[in-house]
Amino acid sequence: MALVRAVTGCAFGNEHRMTLDGFLHPRSVAVVGVGRREGGVGRAIFDNLLAGGFGGSVFPINPSAGEIAGHPCFADVASLPETPDLVVVALPAGDVSAVVDACGSRGVPACIVISAGFKETGPAGAALERDMAERAKRQGVRLLGPNCLGLLAPHAHLNASFAVTMPPPGAMAVLSQSGALGSAILDWAQSRGRGLSAFVSLGNRADVSESDLLEAFDADPATKVVAGYLESIVDGPRFVSVASEVTPRMPVVLLKAGGSDAGARAVSSHTGSLAGSDAAYDAAFRAAGVIRADTMEDLFALAEAFARQPVPQGPGVAILTNAGGPAVLATDACEHAGVHLASLEKTTIDALRAALPPNSALYNPIDVLGDADAGRFRDAARILAQDPGVRSLLVLLTPQVQAQAVETARALAEVAASSGVTTLGCYMGEDSVEDGRRELLANDIPAYRYPESAVSALAGMERYREVRDRPRTSPPAVEADREAVRAILDAAKAAREAFVTEERAAAVARAYGIPTPRATLARNLAAARTAADEIGYPVALKIASPDILHKSDIGGIVLGITDPEELARAWESVLDRAQRRMPEAQIWGAVLQEMVKPGREVIVGINRDPTFGPLLMFGLGGIFVEVLKDVTFSLCPVSARDAAEMIAGIRSYGLLRGARGQAPADLDAVADVIVRVSALAADFPEILELDINPLIVADRGSGAVAADIRIGIGG
Amino acid sequence: MALVRAVTGCAFGNEHRMTLDGFLHPRSVAVVGVGRREGGVGRAIFDNLLAGGFGGSVFPINPSAGEIAGHPCFADVASLPETPDLVVVALPAGDVSAVVDACGSRGVPACIVISAGFKETGPAGAALERDMAERAKRQGVRLLGPNCLGLLAPHAHLNASFAVTMPPPGAMAVLSQSGALGSAILDWAQSRGRGLSAFVSLGNRADVSESDLLEAFDADPATKVVAGYLESIVDGPRFVSVASEVTPRMPVVLLKAGGSDAGARAVSSHTGSLAGSDAAYDAAFRAAGVIRADTMEDLFALAEAFARQPVPQGPGVAILTNAGGPAVLATDACEHAGVHLASLEKTTIDALRAALPPNSALYNPIDVLGDADAGRFRDAARILAQDPGVRSLLVLLTPQVQAQAVETARALAEVAASSGVTTLGCYMGEDSVEDGRRELLANDIPAYRYPESAVSALAGMERYREVRDRPRTSPPAVEADREAVRAILDAAKAAREAFVTEERAAAVARAYGIPTPRATLARNLAAARTAADEIGYPVALKIASPDILHKSDIGGIVLGITDPEELARAWESVLDRAQRRMPEAQIWGAVLQEMVKPGREVIVGINRDPTFGPLLMFGLGGIFVEVLKDVTFSLCPVSARDAAEMIAGIRSYGLLRGARGQAPADLDAVADVIVRVSALAADFPEILELDINPLIVADRGSGAVAADIRIGIGG
Repeated sequence: MALVRAVTGCAFGNEHRMTLDGFLHPRSVAVVGVGRREGGVGRAIFDNLLAGGFGGSVFPINPSAGEIAGHPCFADVASLPETPDLVVVALPAGDVSAVVDACGSRGVPACIVISAGFKETGPAGAALERDMAERAKRQGVRLLGPNCLGLLAPHAHLNASFAVTMPPPGAMAVLSQSGALGSAILDWAQSRGRGLSAFVSLGNRADVSESDLLEAFDADPATKVVAGYLESIVDGPRFVSVASEVTPRMPVVLLKAGGSDAGARAVSSHTGSLAGSDAAYDAAFRAAGVIRADTMEDLFALAEAFARQPVPQGPGVAILTNAGGPAVLATDACEHAGVHLASLEKTTIDALRAALPPNSALYNPIDVLGDADAGRFRDAARILAQDPGVRSLLVLLTPQVQAQAVETARALAEVAASSGVTTLGCYMGEDSVEDGRRELLANDIPAYRYPESAVSALAGMERYREVRDRPRTSPPAVEADREAVRAILDAAKAAREAFVTEERAAAVARAYGIPTPRATLARNLAAARTAADEIGYPVALKIASPDILHKSDIGGIVLGITDPEELARAWESVLDRAQRRMPEAQIWGAVLQEMVKPGREVIVGINRDPTFGPLLMFGLGGIFVEVLKDVTFSLCPVSARDAAEMIAGIRSYGLLRGARGQAPADLDAVADVIVRVSALAADFPEILELDINPLIVADRGSGAVAADIRIGIGG
Repeated sequence: MALVRAVTGCAFGNEHRMTLDGFLHPRSVAVVGVGRREGGVGRAIFDNLLAGGFGGSVFPINPSAGEIAGHPCFADVASLPETPDLVVVALPAGDVSAVVDACGSRGVPACIVISAGFKETGPAGAALERDMAERAKRQGVRLLGPNCLGLLAPHAHLNASFAVTMPPPGAMAVLSQSGALGSAILDWAQSRGRGLSAFVSLGNRADVSESDLLEAFDADPATKVVAGYLESIVDGPRFVSVASEVTPRMPVVLLKAGGSDAGARAVSSHTGSLAGSDAAYDAAFRAAGVIRADTMEDLFALAEAFARQPVPQGPGVAILTNAGGPAVLATDACEHAGVHLASLEKTTIDALRAALPPNSALYNPIDVLGDADAGRFRDAARILAQDPGVRSLLVLLTPQVQAQAVETARALAEVAASSGVTTLGCYMGEDSVEDGRRELLANDIPAYRYPESAVSALAGMERYREVRDRPRTSPPAVEADREAVRAILDAAKAAREAFVTEERAAAVARAYGIPTPRATLARNLAAARTAADEIGYPVALKIASPDILHKSDIGGIVLGITDPEELARAWESVLDRAQRRMPEAQIWGAVLQEMVKPGREVIVGINRDPTFGPLLMFGLGGIFVEVLKDVTFSLCPVSARDAAEMIAGIRSYGLLRGARGQAPADLDAVADVIVRVSALAADFPEILELDINPLIVADRGSGAVAADIRIGIGG
């Protein structure tokens, strides 16, 4: 019976797993832990539910009260007259699991645990949280929290939180891992009249995660943009996969804090030492098309722009101003953020000249002068909006005697509505333009105080347009001898090796089609001579022994052997020395290896990020990595297009493209190696780190060779 | 008579040249161009003067009115009953010069020209402005404007502007080159209750400049901090000299816009191509100790901090918060801005543990939890302020149910006042914490909305502390053979050469003690042999002829000659070839030159900035300059300490300090060359550009040699 119930619960839960309907569109809500007197979290939530005007049934649960605020009280979930879609729990941590069980028994699909006292308090709390989460899962109850503020769904007039603010219904869904920042966001939304479709405080995320919410918001017709604050991500790969699905349809703007949390993790590879967790988050957000906000202010600026205006249909902003100074600031900010000013057509300039007073500046930025009234702003905006090169309009207004902040806002709204050109307003100053800013907002034109914030928002919109419109490329299928790699890694794991030996690392690379120097194991001098002839002089000779790891320490390597005579001398000295120094060692002979011709040296590496898995790094070798840290990162798997972007993304790209009269390097060959390394890392999770350093790159058309490969394994 | 009056006027004017007392502390003010009816700029200014409550005499001037607003009207300046200290002119541009003349005749020391229609309208207006400025100067009248908003001096209740806002008296002086941004700043000050000591709209700066104002503000006991907006600087060297005097006594925060204005200027040197005017402004502000704001918002954030709180006595901030999220954001921002979190003493931690509830975070950041009231904030702040490592306190408050934003502000003010620890407040949210923010401001604690703004302000304060406390180093006297250089440059100028020949450039360098490869002119092969023996093989041989500029084009250079035999062959081939190719050329023989041993290659260059004069550039040579643009700039003259900072300031500094097991380069030798190049540029303004590229630097203790020097001259 218990089994049957669990299975049923699961089925029900899975249905809701997609939509989280129980949270966002409940028909009835029960609150557990509602005190008879005001004060106390449970009572506050119950009062908020009533005050919010929620249309469905609301049940207070308190075993010792008959009635609360005119609503009949119930002793527990079991004794409710109907099964609520949502149960909110505000009891001491120790009492929550029993309520979750009761929800499961009753078939309640969704439960919010407001209570603190779980993982955030230490190991005992963490155990309690795990137990609660397992019970919920087993019984098909989706669980938000614990240790959260609750949620609001303004379209349903649902305030299932202990926040007293209730923003108007709107198109923006907000999620926050921090309750406190959540309340600051709510306060901002409320004060700005910013409508929300949902506000969800994630808390400890024992069950419902940011990825679940993204799916739910995506399925919610009211939501057009998602904004959020996160300090970490629960399941990196799932997040990337879900967000990649969502972002082509709606912008997702996230502020991710805590850039330095992974600093303490011990790392031994180059790639690992350069890849803080922030590089992984950057790479993940880029891969998923998520727009990353740099600061809280930036989050608001971006969210406002996305919520209120259409994404510009292309690059090209016209700056319209009633003063020169702000236009200079805006132009500087555009240059800095990579936002291109539109070049106006001649007909536009002529029309502006006819419409504006003589001293106006007609070339972008367009200065309609300090005595401009709303009509002059309207005329200029209309003309600009008709220019095919103007895809967005940034209007700057400073408080001057003749300025009409409110009327100008209305005029701009008119032009924006009729033209469809993305329009952002920046009214500089405080009290004297505050009414004007409110009028802009009332007309769904985002209103900024500073040109830099407005430009930052516009830059975010343009970034989003690029992300949304980029062709979806899948990583190519890489032909590889996976069995060979499996055998090598298994053998290394069986031998408890942390690193694969050099020859085997080269064999792994070759199995994935990554060029390595030609090499042959020779068991005696005669075989070595034949091998050297085949490879072609100059060659290198390296002792081959399973017992000798650090070959150069015992003189086991000779480089640059130019003829058979030198080869003979090298063979004798290397083999002699090895036998003398390590008489116990099993010696297989020596490896004859091609000497790679000098070329530009780059590094391609893999580091495994704890959240997102394999993270691929690319950079120029040597000092560029060690001193300048001039590298780019990408999540795996990497497509050829991603690889090309990584290569072009380093500061020293000019050296590869061919600066100072040098021929361009074979970048296609580099991109190919990157794609193959990515496939290798994706196929074999036990590869914890990998450095190809250097990959020696010849001129265009002549390939690249992995001269040194290091592979660290585990797991 | 006219002459005598002019001289008297000048003397009077010079007295005011320092203090600008006529502007900031006038005893009487006349306004020229006051209309009988309201509306119109002159009338607005007159009404503002009256409304502001100015205590001295106020005279309206209008030839056709008997009385305006109850004040008897005068026909012109000449007919005033007393000589006013300040005359404000709001007449059409063409009528202003006559008023300036009248002011001169009457001995008026200060005149504000509000009128537009001058330089900003084109060449005719510029001529008008020049004429007006010359008249003013000749007659000893200081002139503010034209094309400006006017000025306010709140301590004197003086509003001599057409801005209607009048902020309370305070310690901050504001200057703005843009009237519109000026009005936004005034509006901000008014709305925030930000007291000002002065507000000055600079306009076209026909006479009074930002440097004049800095001097005046420095002399004004009411002013403790200067904030301003500039798009350019009138006299760069004077600005640097004045600001350097002012900034040790009070912080000067400037927003400089228009970073890309010099893009069009043609440049031919490496240094010139890398030094946009923004590099010069950065270098100038750094040299002068001016704190540069990046954005308008940053300007406000910094100005507020400086105006309201003492500069921290050292590094070490404690972050006190009622929520984790904001603390994470603040910590990220601190890391990013280089602001160090204080390490708390054990006694502090113990005291915090005793005072705070169990789950509080006791290590910096200190989280007093979401239910913290004002008393808990006070207790924690008191304990933190006693820790000797805590020099500043950043208090973050989010709107939570139990938060007491206003009471907390009072509690913090109490602790700040009694401890003297620099205290900044960041209340996140809008309406629900706005009262709290106002209470912070009322208690002279700067109040921010976002942790990032607060941290940016703190970072600016710490930067100022470093600037203020840095030892004043003067550039050392460089011993040099100035006559030799004078002769070379004069000869080159006489010959109308744009560039000094290679040998002469080397001679210039040697005259300033900059090591160059040893070189000797040999008139025949025998002399060449002797010279090569003296220099030591390998040597280079270069044709010497005043008629051959591009030596390598005609095969006039042979490098790496290793013995006398090769030398003979080289001599023959070079001299032969030159005579065959250029039979008319006068040939002196050939220069035998030392081949410099390979070393690390750096570039030291000079470019002459139109505003600030010689700008010195340092960077690693080759790709680091050409591809990575990894260079630092400094104004001349450069001290040894400045030079060391320039060297350490490049990203690739690790390569010079000795990365990858390399020995450190001889950085003292590089610094010495930088100082000598700086002295050379300062001594000879006709040197427009100079590149030492490369300066070949040997390992520590072994010197540096200027292998190639290019000197461009003019003027």
